[in-house]
Formats: sequence, structure tokens, C-alpha cells
Amino acid sequence: MSEQDALVVFTPSGRRGRFPVGTPLLQAARALGVDIDSVCGGRGLCGRCQVTVCEGEFSKHGISSRADSLSPVAENEQAYIRRRGELKPGRRLSCSSQLQGNCVIDVPPESQVHRQIVRKRAEVFDIELDPMIRLYYVEVQQPDMHLPTSDLRRLKEALDFEWRLENLWSDIRVVQEIQAALRTGDWKVTAAIYDDQRIIAVWPGFQSRIYGMAVDVGSTTIAAHLCNLQSGEVVASAGRMNPQIRYGEDLMSRVSYVMMNPGGNEDMTREVRQAINDLALDLATEAGIALTEIIEATFVGNPIMHHLLLGVNPIELGGAPFALATGDSVSGLQATELDLFIHPNARVYVLPCIAGHVGADTAAIILSETPYLTEELTLLVDVGTNAEIVLGNRERVLACSSPTGPAFEGAQISCGQRAANGAIERVRIDPDTLEPRFKVIGSDLWSNEPGFDAVVQKTGVTGICGSGIIEVMAELYLAGIITQDGIIDGSLAARSERIVADGRTWSYVLDQSDDRTLSITQNDVRAIQLAKAALYAGIRLLMDKLGVDSVERIGLAGAFGSHIDVKYAMVLGMIPDCPLENVKSVGNAASTGARIALLNKKARLEIEDQVQQVEKIETAVEPRFQEHFINAMAIPHKTDGFPHLRGRFTLPEPRFIERDDGSEGGGRRRRRRRRVA
Amino acid sequence: MSEQDALVVFTPSGRRGRFPVGTPLLQAARALGVDIDSVCGGRGLCGRCQVTVCEGEFSKHGISSRADSLSPVAENEQAYIRRRGELKPGRRLSCSSQLQGNCVIDVPPESQVHRQIVRKRAEVFDIELDPMIRLYYVEVQQPDMHLPTSDLRRLKEALDFEWRLENLWSDIRVVQEIQAALRTGDWKVTAAIYDDQRIIAVWPGFQSRIYGMAVDVGSTTIAAHLCNLQSGEVVASAGRMNPQIRYGEDLMSRVSYVMMNPGGNEDMTREVRQAINDLALDLATEAGIALTEIIEATFVGNPIMHHLLLGVNPIELGGAPFALATGDSVSGLQATELDLFIHPNARVYVLPCIAGHVGADTAAIILSETPYLTEELTLLVDVGTNAEIVLGNRERVLACSSPTGPAFEGAQISCGQRAANGAIERVRIDPDTLEPRFKVIGSDLWSNEPGFDAVVQKTGVTGICGSGIIEVMAELYLAGIITQDGIIDGSLAARSERIVADGRTWSYVLDQSDDRTLSITQNDVRAIQLAKAALYAGIRLLMDKLGVDSVERIGLAGAFGSHIDVKYAMVLGMIPDCPLENVKSVGNAASTGARIALLNKKARLEIEDQVQQVEKIETAVEPRFQEHFINAMAIPHKTDGFPHLRGRFTLPEPRFIERDDGSEGGGRRRRRRRRVA
Repeated sequence: MSEQDALVVFTPSGRRGRFPVGTPLLQAARALGVDIDSVCGGRGLCGRCQVTVCEGEFSKHGISSRADSLSPVAENEQAYIRRRGELKPGRRLSCSSQLQGNCVIDVPPESQVHRQIVRKRAEVFDIELDPMIRLYYVEVQQPDMHLPTSDLRRLKEALDFEWRLENLWSDIRVVQEIQAALRTGDWKVTAAIYDDQRIIAVWPGFQSRIYGMAVDVGSTTIAAHLCNLQSGEVVASAGRMNPQIRYGEDLMSRVSYVMMNPGGNEDMTREVRQAINDLALDLATEAGIALTEIIEATFVGNPIMHHLLLGVNPIELGGAPFALATGDSVSGLQATELDLFIHPNARVYVLPCIAGHVGADTAAIILSETPYLTEELTLLVDVGTNAEIVLGNRERVLACSSPTGPAFEGAQISCGQRAANGAIERVRIDPDTLEPRFKVIGSDLWSNEPGFDAVVQKTGVTGICGSGIIEVMAELYLAGIITQDGIIDGSLAARSERIVADGRTWSYVLDQSDDRTLSITQNDVRAIQLAKAALYAGIRLLMDKLGVDSVERIGLAGAFGSHIDVKYAMVLGMIPDCPLENVKSVGNAASTGARIALLNKKARLEIEDQVQQVEKIETAVEPRFQEHFINAMAIPHKTDGFPHLRGRFTLPEPRFIERDDGSEGGGRRRRRRRRVA
Repeated sequence: MSEQDALVVFTPSGRRGRFPVGTPLLQAARALGVDIDSVCGGRGLCGRCQVTVCEGEFSKHGISSRADSLSPVAENEQAYIRRRGELKPGRRLSCSSQLQGNCVIDVPPESQVHRQIVRKRAEVFDIELDPMIRLYYVEVQQPDMHLPTSDLRRLKEALDFEWRLENLWSDIRVVQEIQAALRTGDWKVTAAIYDDQRIIAVWPGFQSRIYGMAVDVGSTTIAAHLCNLQSGEVVASAGRMNPQIRYGEDLMSRVSYVMMNPGGNEDMTREVRQAINDLALDLATEAGIALTEIIEATFVGNPIMHHLLLGVNPIELGGAPFALATGDSVSGLQATELDLFIHPNARVYVLPCIAGHVGADTAAIILSETPYLTEELTLLVDVGTNAEIVLGNRERVLACSSPTGPAFEGAQISCGQRAANGAIERVRIDPDTLEPRFKVIGSDLWSNEPGFDAVVQKTGVTGICGSGIIEVMAELYLAGIITQDGIIDGSLAARSERIVADGRTWSYVLDQSDDRTLSITQNDVRAIQLAKAALYAGIRLLMDKLGVDSVERIGLAGAFGSHIDVKYAMVLGMIPDCPLENVKSVGNAASTGARIALLNKKARLEIEDQVQQVEKIETAVEPRFQEHFINAMAIPHKTDGFPHLRGRFTLPEPRFIERDDGSEGGGRRRRRRRRVA
């Protein structure tokens, strides 16, 4: 190092050093350990090593930095520009620029190997891009009769020499294709390397892009995101119905199908795999890429979807003791082993399951929301036919599943329906007049606003979707129409025509037209009470285990969590008391977890490790579950105080009404209560 | 350890120790590091841990050993005997016998884990049984709702607890089958573990046998042996024609077929794999086992067969620089990846190739014959369409291939044919009368013995096979009918009617009937000269590289080597001079090498390592090859002295005859030689 050497400072890392004039900038960066990406190994092909020369006086560094501190634009930079278009102003390819004098060089985020994929929500960590499969461009020695090594051996030698990738294995399909690739590419090829260990694909010449898909296999829908594994960006998203629905709407009816139809699991396995193939094609089409450019896929799903995807008969999950065939992650599986037709050597990673009722989707939510890294006691709830519940912080994390049944999704509700245009999703009830107003999906107008009828003319008002059911129940309670015990108060029929007799119970008429009536019946209320009591009891059980009476943060996952108004969920007592501003939808966190595992290989080890440490609680064998369940039947709760909620809402005072429908809800015990508070 | 303890001495290892009375013998053996096999983990199921109590006074050990030094025959030994029949006299199951007093216990070879498979030939090492895939019997914990681990996890825990197998991975098909296996087997299963790392199969209950097949894929025939992986014995052998023959008899014509018919390699790949499937069925049928009990297969073959088996287009092997796609061993491949239908999770191992002309079959010969372990300079020759040549000892090993062409196999010879009933395989010619006698395959009589005509009536005398060609050429030379230069001496027509004019050259009539004449023509002699000159020149080239003029041991591999009379091969100058008693057939050493790799996993590493170290010589680029070739055209050789041979045979004095067939053999140079010595 001499005074003749040029001083270079890289930002944002601040790493600095002196190098002889003429040193390629990329080489200087590597010598200093500066994180700059490169696929082509410094040949000016990939354009990933772009940097910006900072121009001006940098007194902090004692450097006057100018554009001509680097060598003039070189031939291969010009060639790159001819192929790919102009670089951004001030940008150079660091592999093709030599140091001419002192300079300050900025490495933009997109040129860093381990760049961050920024997530929208503030409370979660960004994803660090560090994919399992990476591309490496090499020039391979031609064969020589004097030195008869194989083409594969020479490829391995080149990968070792240029990229320090040692002791590589290779897929048999790489062996089958390597000779054509080398000769077509004139001895220049791009290799895809799995985990720095295994050559899984070889393309002639320079291949700049590979993609991965992150798939959330739900019982109702299958959602998938296609990501560029070089940039981390989502380039396409798609969803499809799970075709297994024709074997049963919910999970247990699918397991029953297998019990009644031996071999039926194979049909369901075939159908879900076909749907994933269709989804892959949707994604590739949307992104304008070939299916064979998708070289990896990650999967999450509940245990039954997980087993059916893997070709495992889910029958053991249909009854106690709910034994998983495997809960371990499935790593490095060939996509062809699951009959997936993307790149023929594509790999599959399936996240670990937690227990027989708590699947890889919940593991993915944990990976996305990282309760194990937080100080705050965090509750994560994924509501579906079953609710998966996670509670914990950096000290301990617990998980369980609770059998809510499908009421929250609109099933078992007389006028319930899927979320679709025409479905009621928002409801308000005037506590004085007991008159309702509502919004339907597809319209921004309330039902009492001018123009509403015109807007909904096309779809009609067809039913109530999940979030609408939560709201109508909570509003009925807040308006005093249903009591804390969930009884529709028939005495109010005198005040409002909307309270109508329905056999020995009462109903509330939400909307009426010539050809149909949308009512909330006593049975509907009861169904929601049972579902929310099961959910709350599961949560309460985990709180017991931790010895806490409140939680600090609540995340609601899934489509349901995205549409629900959290305050109504709390009014209804679905979730425990908590400062309302700390209750948020976490979106499709399962899908996000699948995407994190796709983009970051260390995240796979992290979630595998966390899943081992999660304490699994089986609600069915917990003696206190029943007690919690009974207390949680009340709205919002029989015994828990909900101080934060009461700070925001005036909840009706408890009243007790004799119930006349002896058939449900433990009527006898209630009949003794005659007091109306 | 107290004087109350029992003293036990195990033979043949001599290991000894004291253990409390009541200690199970197997446990004592393990504590002392005595090599005793067990699959069932000491449950009296597998019967592999049998030992013999030695009865009598053993003054050497200071022990009086009696049958009642062990506990009486236990219930599970009786159960074993009921299932499997009586034990040999004095035998006990060591897992079920407890020490009662001092004793001497003999561990028979078949009870040792690393037992030796004895080979017939004295000069080679026995095979140590140490297969890649082993069986382990375990009892697995039942699932428990309080501890919701998966079935796979509990299987792994049992394998860890009982067998110290840690960090196991498993195939996806194991995941698919594990639940049924555990429940059918009442939580007792046998697992097949690959390389102590991966669970590849699970059977309900106790499974005692698994098999492997060792396959030599030759261009003409495919030979396979089925071995019991627990005992090492060959339980069935079978061979089939390579169906690729219809695309071309020899290797180069198959490569030409691919050149002319793009995609033709895929047809050949499909056909060879189908033939291997057929062979597997032949083997399983012969051994009375299910195809699914075959859980591993090892393969050897020349580079073109190797590539076609693996699904690699062999076209690059058809021309310089003869680049292999891969020469590395192929390890842990799933049999299904080669469309082989044995056990669905069966694994495949393909031995490494040495160079573009020197394949995995030659590697297998090296593994079988271990020249790299010998002091003696060893020459190994495998004669086929090409000859593969290996020369070396523990210092250095060299290998090359030489283009002999198919003359030695009877092709290009006017009356040549495959070895089959009716083919002449032995020939003698009386040097005085010039009359021949011969033997044909299928008869033990010489043609001049009484009864010969009757015996061969059915097949006729149809042609000459490879070994017969070598003999007739050598005998023609020894009888003085052909000269050192390979000219049939027409002047002898005066002495024998068997020398007949054939255009401008002469032929020797070996046998004549009404409808056909079997003659050796001048062209036949020339074809053999070219072939043997190529072989010898290749050998000589390797000798040059080592700076030697003779070799100490010669092994002739393959079917040709088994039938040839080595002294005639030396008379003809196919092989260099060597003490005749050190020239032997090594049988199908390629097949043996495949079997060694099947039975011993360390042998795989050994041959992979050796192949790296073998010096590959490419005859086509060696300047001296041509010179060696020309000198080797003479019989036995133009310049090399063959002292050992001359010590056993009186070779004719060199004579020179003007040749009249200017069309062949460098006639002009020869015409100058007029001297008859």
C-alpha cells in the first residue's frame, strides 16, 4: 500500500482501503468484504454489481471524489447498455470500472447480495434475501484428450475456481443435460446451485433469472406468490379454489370421505397437486416467464392439507390421538416427487407442522410475526374451521388449536354466505330505533344512503358474510337486543317490528324483500356463541399456562382477520381484552411465512428450531377447557372484565331472560335465574 | 468387577472380560467390542447373534466352560426355534442367554457383522460384508395427545435410542407409509437405513431379508447377480441379451445410430432399462422373493452403456475428444430415477468411469483385482470390441483402451460366429501332416475321435468362436502355415490339400462338408493381426510409461478371458511375455467388482479414490502407438523376445514371403524383403 494507491470508501458500509490504480472496483470491494452481488463473476453480463460514484468533496473521508476517479466506460459496460438499456445516472458496473483516483462509492440496496425485502407493516422485520438456490455463471475448460476429465468434473472445477464452491454434487438430470448446455453455450454456462452443495440446473450461456413460488394450501383456497429469487420481488400472485372441496367443505368431512372411500385420499392428493400445477401456470403466464424458470416452491398448510399434498393418508388426523405422519420440515424434495411440473429439477420445501391440529400454516404465521423475538406478549389467531392460536414472547411460545367450527365463515348461520358481491359485511343498529343499516361487498354506500338500491340492483343483498356476522351479533348485543347470555329479547317486539317470533324463540329481521328475509335467529346467535366460546377458551387456556390475564398485542391472520373490525370481535368476546390499537390484522401471514422461507434459507432453520420449542397444548385433554368454554359463552364474557374494551364502549348491563328453548344452551340452569338486572 | 463375576472369553477375537452373573451374553460382547450381528436389537427375533458355547477345560484361558455356564434356553429362544427350526448343536442366541459362570464363547463367521464373503480364487481378497443399507428392528412409542410428536419423530427417537442412529432423514415415501406400517406392526417395525443417514423403507413387524442386485451392462449381454444383503451370498444369477443390439452390434454403430437418428438414444435408454427390469424379475423369480425386496442395485458398464443407462446421450463419446458427461460415481440415486421398478425407494450406485474409453466396468475390474494393492506388476486386459488395459501395482496404475475391433469376437472373420453350440472352440494342427482336429462347443470329443460326428449331428459344425480363432491362428503359425508376418504360405499347397488358392492369396480349409467350407483366409489372418497388434501396442504403451519390459502377472477378464487358452494368446502375441503360470482368467471381474460395491460401502470410496489416481493414457494421441502397432503386427512380435514363451514352445524361425495382395498390409515395404531366412 503506497501513497500512489487510490483510496476508496464504500457507503453505506463505510469500509475503506487503498488499492493500486487500475484495480477493478468489484475486486476492491471484495477485498474489503463489501457486500456486492454478482452472478457473472465480473464479466459485465449480469449488471448486478452496479454502484454509484459519489461526486464532490467528502471532508469526512478526506476525499475529492469525481466521475473520473474511475476508468472510462469500458467496452463490456457499453455492451451491457446496448443489451439492457441505459444505467441510472452515475451508475457503473463495478466489475468493469477500475480505480483511477480517490473516490466514494455507494452500493445501492439492489446491488447487495443480502439485500432487504421491505415489508409494509412497521411491526415486522424485513425479509433478508438469501435464497437457497443461487445462480453462478462460469466459463468451463474444453475437454482435452490429454486430460480426459468429464464435462461435469470441469464444470465443478470452474465453480470451485471462480466461486469457491467445493465438493458439489449434482442431479442426474444435470448429468443428462450438461453436454448440450456446454456446447450450446460455447463452454459458458449458468449453474443453479442448491444450498451451495448441489448443482440442480445448467443453462447455456448467461441465465439471469430464476423464480420461486410460495404456496399456502388452504382447505378452501390455494394462494400462491411468484418471486424473483434474484431480487426477492413478488412478480405475480394468484389463487384458486381447492378442488378437494367437492369431497367436503371442511377438513373433517374430507377425512370422513377417506374413511368411507378407501383410496379417496389419493384422489384428493392428485387434485390438489393438479390445482398447484394450474396455479403455477397462472403465475408464469401472468409474469411472462416459462414454467421451467420456477425452480423452487415452498408450501404451508394445515396438517390435513399438508398430508394430502405430500401424499400421506390424513386418516390418523381424523381422530385421537391425532398423530401426524411427520411434522418435520420436508427439505430438498424434488418437485417431481409431488408430481409438480415446474423446472424438472425444482426443489420443494414444506414448513414444519407443530402438532396434529396445528400445521405448517401456523408455523408460517409464527415465522412471519416472530412472537419469539418480541418483548410484548403476543397473541396470534388464525380463524378458520378450526382456530389456531399462538401466544408468547421471547420467553415462551405456546400453540393450540380450538374447534370453532365453521360458523365464523358463515356456515351454520341461516343467512350466512361466503364473502362475495352482495354479501353484507358491515352492520350498524341504532340502539334507540333498533333499525339496522349495512354495507354489502361491492358497494361503498350504507343501505340507508341514497343510491344504495341502484348500486346493489345487480347483485342483490344475498346474505351475510363472516365479518358481517360478527358485526351484526355485536351490534345486536350493544343495542340490547341480545343479552349477555345470548338470548334475543322478545320483549322488544313491542318496540320494533324487526323482532319477530320464530317458534318458541325470537329472530331479528335484518333485511326483507319480496322474495326473501335475512334474519338473525336464536340458533344463529347460539352458533356464534359456541364458536367464539371455543376460540376464547383456547386462548384462555394458553394464558393460564403462562399465568397471565391479558395480552399486549393481538394479530388476526388470514382473510377473516383482514376483513373483521377488531373492536366488534372484542365486543363479542372472541379475543381477550387488549388495547384496541394493538389489535391488528396481520394479513395472510401464512403466505408471508411461506415467502420468507422461499427467500431466506436461514429462516427455514429458524422456524424448524422454533417449532421444536413451541409448547403444544392439546385443548381436548385440558381439564379447564370446558370451564373456560362455559364462561366464554357469555358476551363478551361471564367473568373476565375487559377493562380496555369498557374504556372505549359502554357495554349493556347484564340482564337475564328466561329462555324458552329448553333444547339448547343448558336451559335448566338458566331458568333458575329470574333476576333482570 | 469382582471374583463373583463370570469370566467370558470370546473366540476368535480373544477378547475377554468379567461380568456380573446374569449379564446377557450379547451385552457382554458389545461391551468388549466383539463383532456380533443383530437386527432385532436383542429380542430373539432375527437369530443373527448365534454363538457356540465351547465345552471343556481351557487351560490357556484358565476356564472350565460348560453348557450350563449360560442360563437355560429361554422362552424367546424356544419361540425362535419353533418359528425357524432347531439351532445347530451347541448354538445359543447370545441376546437371550445370560452368563452363569466362566465360559468360552465362539462367534461363528455368519454371526459377525463384518463377516467375510469367501472368494474362490486364492490371489484375490475376500469381500468384507458391510452393506450400504442395513435393517434395524425397533419398537416405537405410541402417540400420546399429551406429547404430540409425529410418528416419524417417534420412529427416529426409537432408532436413536436403540441403535444410536442420529439425525436421520427420510424419503417422502417413508412418510407416506409409516403410519400404516406402525399400526399394522403393532408399533414394531423394521427400518432400512441407507448409510446410517436416511430411512428408506419401513416394514411392519420384523423383516429379516433385503436383497441387492449387481449388474454388468455389457454391449452384448447384461449379467446380474442377486445377493442377500444380510449374508452376502449370491442367491440368483441371470443374464439377458442387451436389446440395444438391434441398433448396432458394437458400440460405435450404436453411437452412429444416434447420430443418424436424433432421439435414438432415448429409445436405447428405455430398452436397456426395460431389460434390467426383466432381469430383476428373472432374479426375483429364481430366488423366490418379491421384486420389492430388492432395495439396492449397483451398475458397471463401458462408458457408452453407462451413459445410456443414465439417460445421457452418448454422442460425445463417438468422436474426439471423447468427453464423458460424468465419470464420477453416481451415488444414492433413486432406482425410480432410472425407471427401475424394484423396491420403490431402492437406491442405485454406479461405479465411476475412468475416461471416455475406459468405463465403470474397468473400474470394477480394478476393484475386484486390486492391482493397487499388489507388489507384482499386474496387467489386466478386458477384450471386447475395444480392449481395456490396466497396468500397475501399488506404486502406480495406468489404464487405456485400444481399438481392437470385433475380430476377437468372431466378427470380420469369414467363418467367425458367437460362442454357441456348434462353434469350434479348440483347434490343433499337426505340423507334419498339416491336418487339423478341433472341438466344438457342446461336445467333449475331438473331431478325430470316434463318435464326434454323431454328437455334433444335431448342431452341426457352424463356425469358429473367439477362442477358436485365437487357437487356429496360433496353431497355423506354430505349424509353419503362416509366417511371422502373417502370410499364408502358398508353397505348402504342394504338401496339403488344405492350403488352397483364394484369388491372389491362399486359404487354409479347416473343415468341409457338402454344403459349406470353413476356411481361414488371408483376410481373416490380417483381421486378427490388426486386432492383436492394437491390443499389444496399447499394453506396450503403458509398459513404456512405467519404463518396464515385462509384467509379472496377467489377468484376462470377461467371457473371452474365461475361454481362451492363455498360451495361444501369448503365442499370437496378444499379450506380452510373462511366466505362463501367472497368466490367468479372472472371470467376470467387472461383475465381481459390481458385487463388491454392492456388499461393501467402503469399497465404493476405495474405487472412487483409485479411479482418481489411475493415470489415463489416450492411445490416439500417443506418438509411439503407431510404431508399437506396426511391430506388433508380426507373430508373436517383430522385436520383443518373449523369453518365457520360447522357454516353453519352439517357435518357427522367421521367414519372409513376398505378398501378392498389394491391397493390404503395407505391401510395398514388404515387397522389398526377398530373403527367406
